Amino acid sequence: MAETGIEYEELFSELGRSMQPNAIRKLTPLIARGDIISLAAGAPSVETFALEELSEIAFRVIREQGRSALQYGPTRGQAKLIQAITEIMHARGVERTSPSEIVVTTGSQQGLDLVARVLLDPGDIALVELPSYIGGIIALRNARAELVGVRQDAGGIDIADLIEKIARLRAVGRRVKCVYTIPNFQNPSGVTLASDRRHRLVEVAEEHGLIIIEDDPYYDLYFTDNRDGFTPLAALEGSRVIYLSSFSKVLAPGLRTAWLAAPQPIVSKIELAKEGADLSSSMLDQAIAAEALDSGLVERRLPELRAFYEKRCRAMLDALARHAPEGSQWTKPLGGFFVLMELAAARDATELLPRAIENGVAYVPGQPFFVDDGGANTLRLAFSKESPENITEGIERLCRIFSGAPS
Amino acid sequence: MAETGIEYEELFSELGRSMQPNAIRKLTPLIARGDIISLAAGAPSVETFALEELSEIAFRVIREQGRSALQYGPTRGQAKLIQAITEIMHARGVERTSPSEIVVTTGSQQGLDLVARVLLDPGDIALVELPSYIGGIIALRNARAELVGVRQDAGGIDIADLIEKIARLRAVGRRVKCVYTIPNFQNPSGVTLASDRRHRLVEVAEEHGLIIIEDDPYYDLYFTDNRDGFTPLAALEGSRVIYLSSFSKVLAPGLRTAWLAAPQPIVSKIELAKEGADLSSSMLDQAIAAEALDSGLVERRLPELRAFYEKRCRAMLDALARHAPEGSQWTKPLGGFFVLMELAAARDATELLPRAIENGVAYVPGQPFFVDDGGANTLRLAFSKESPENITEGIERLCRIFSGAPS
Repeated sequence: MAETGIEYEELFSELGRSMQPNAIRKLTPLIARGDIISLAAGAPSVETFALEELSEIAFRVIREQGRSALQYGPTRGQAKLIQAITEIMHARGVERTSPSEIVVTTGSQQGLDLVARVLLDPGDIALVELPSYIGGIIALRNARAELVGVRQDAGGIDIADLIEKIARLRAVGRRVKCVYTIPNFQNPSGVTLASDRRHRLVEVAEEHGLIIIEDDPYYDLYFTDNRDGFTPLAALEGSRVIYLSSFSKVLAPGLRTAWLAAPQPIVSKIELAKEGADLSSSMLDQAIAAEALDSGLVERRLPELRAFYEKRCRAMLDALARHAPEGSQWTKPLGGFFVLMELAAARDATELLPRAIENGVAYVPGQPFFVDDGGANTLRLAFSKESPENITEGIERLCRIFSGAPS
Repeated sequence: MAETGIEYEELFSELGRSMQPNAIRKLTPLIARGDIISLAAGAPSVETFALEELSEIAFRVIREQGRSALQYGPTRGQAKLIQAITEIMHARGVERTSPSEIVVTTGSQQGLDLVARVLLDPGDIALVELPSYIGGIIALRNARAELVGVRQDAGGIDIADLIEKIARLRAVGRRVKCVYTIPNFQNPSGVTLASDRRHRLVEVAEEHGLIIIEDDPYYDLYFTDNRDGFTPLAALEGSRVIYLSSFSKVLAPGLRTAWLAAPQPIVSKIELAKEGADLSSSMLDQAIAAEALDSGLVERRLPELRAFYEKRCRAMLDALARHAPEGSQWTKPLGGFFVLMELAAARDATELLPRAIENGVAYVPGQPFFVDDGGANTLRLAFSKESPENITEGIERLCRIFSGAPS
């Protein structure tokens, strides 16, 4: 483009100026090396994509419904898909959800962004787990909210710490608006919120007038015999929840088809925000997702998907149990894609990464997931991408590095 | 969802509270009646969708490239598509554009939203044409900018009025940041910016340090023998332009695949904003668009598309010439989808709409497109959706109503 002599830094808005590449993005070129065992990527395995079925669905959808699937469509989403999502909400125990309380979004990332924009004014406080998902952190920050971390342990968010943080912030006049939580198989920790805490979290939100932003993309990918422990907060009586979930992990993330469910007045505002943000999500992607649901493709494949990821998770946990150095610990996920490993306090996972990559293994340091800048000795290990054999090999190599003397 | 007892109005951010359904959205249920001749809808005709070719491309793309086309992808867009877009920019005369200066967006609507967010702080001034595109107005308002209208005539934006507005606003200390223009076959006016004014607009922007947001979705749909008059502002020397265009009008809007081109420092910020907004646009849609370009499908169909819409435009202009009441006037578009009609000053197009709909014809009143609340006697007539016969019939009926005594 033209040489313009523009002073770019002066050009941008406060938001534009405050946006910085996140630490994970900076690692991407490093991690993307082809010959590496990647425990870094948080994406589903391409092996789980139903290429044959989806290619046929796409063909049929365009031939038979192309006049709607290729045209502009309703901002809130394609009617048939919204109906199918309503049934999914009911099956997850959120029986009160009606179709008018659903918005289809361009991935859950868009849902988080829209929610943040309609809820948060600059300087409002959003409470987030320590650690929490980077994409959620970015969306909340882009609404110019201030993020405050709440402790998390093996049972999920620490309710006592949550109450204390709310009290302390309100005592100094801060507007605490919402708590952002990923209750099932959290990214990056793999932790699941304990049942009793789910009830307490809903109560605390009600008592203190907070909205809960419940991000639940991994719901279907549990490794246990039953799913009772994973019931959404949105299903609990009196809950003030904006619930988000996605087809990215059970169908394909390239389709960018996710949804949120919330009380109707919130949905109306989010619909308006979405109209300005992209008019609607891809109509073709929505039509494909609707057909994949209607044909039973999604439901039918879930047991396979669970077994697929459980096997990989087990390979990771077994290798960690055999090789992890003394003084380290790690989470034991009940589903999802991630294990969070905590090294001895003196070790720094960011500093150790180049040596891991030299040895052909990549991971994501945990620190960027902690809004309080903690977690320097933690790392996120994804078991979603690599084969069980590679995972075993990768963990062995990593543990050899982590067992060495601090450099 | 749950009965929550939430005070919703208090819950929302300032942005959430300020968002109101736009006037056109309120008309939608009225206009959507099946038996109506719709000169309202601004969408491309479904008859122009290449269903057969696109269904085959979708099938092939998923079979052969599904592992990337269904996976998460780069925020800035799929590499092959970015390359093809770079070539399109060159073909449009913007020869300096490099692939690193492109961002693929979820429709141009997302491009407008991201640009507004990274450029505009609350209270900044964005100058817009009178009238201008509603989606652009919404995106600019959602960045909490203040919009000021600049006069437009048959030659496009009025440069003298632009200079005067800038001077007047700066004299009272306002931060005038950008001018939003749709230079070719504008929505809603159908007007094209005259060549000499293109140069003047670029000069004025340079002199006053303004960014030009150039929205050019209709570029390919010109009805003349050559396209010299439609060269983007971005192609002119010294231009400070963020250029947006789209595949919505020449391929299919349901694919939600558009792009923007801007100097690299702006693109970097927009990439960051997009990461928070939706991670990436649909990878499947992008792969389909890339294949449709690569196979020559898009290029090959352009002459047909131009002839298709030109025939409809001619039917509308002919009918207006025959039937329009004295005291009315209308634009003569050189391309695109729209004619703007101006009734005698005393008539109100919003008040006349119910009678039009009773008579089986819909249009969009012009007033919502005017940020100064003017244009009450104008209406947007789209020739994109209906057959030439229906257009002729629809205009006849409308003109009968408009010829009646003011009610």
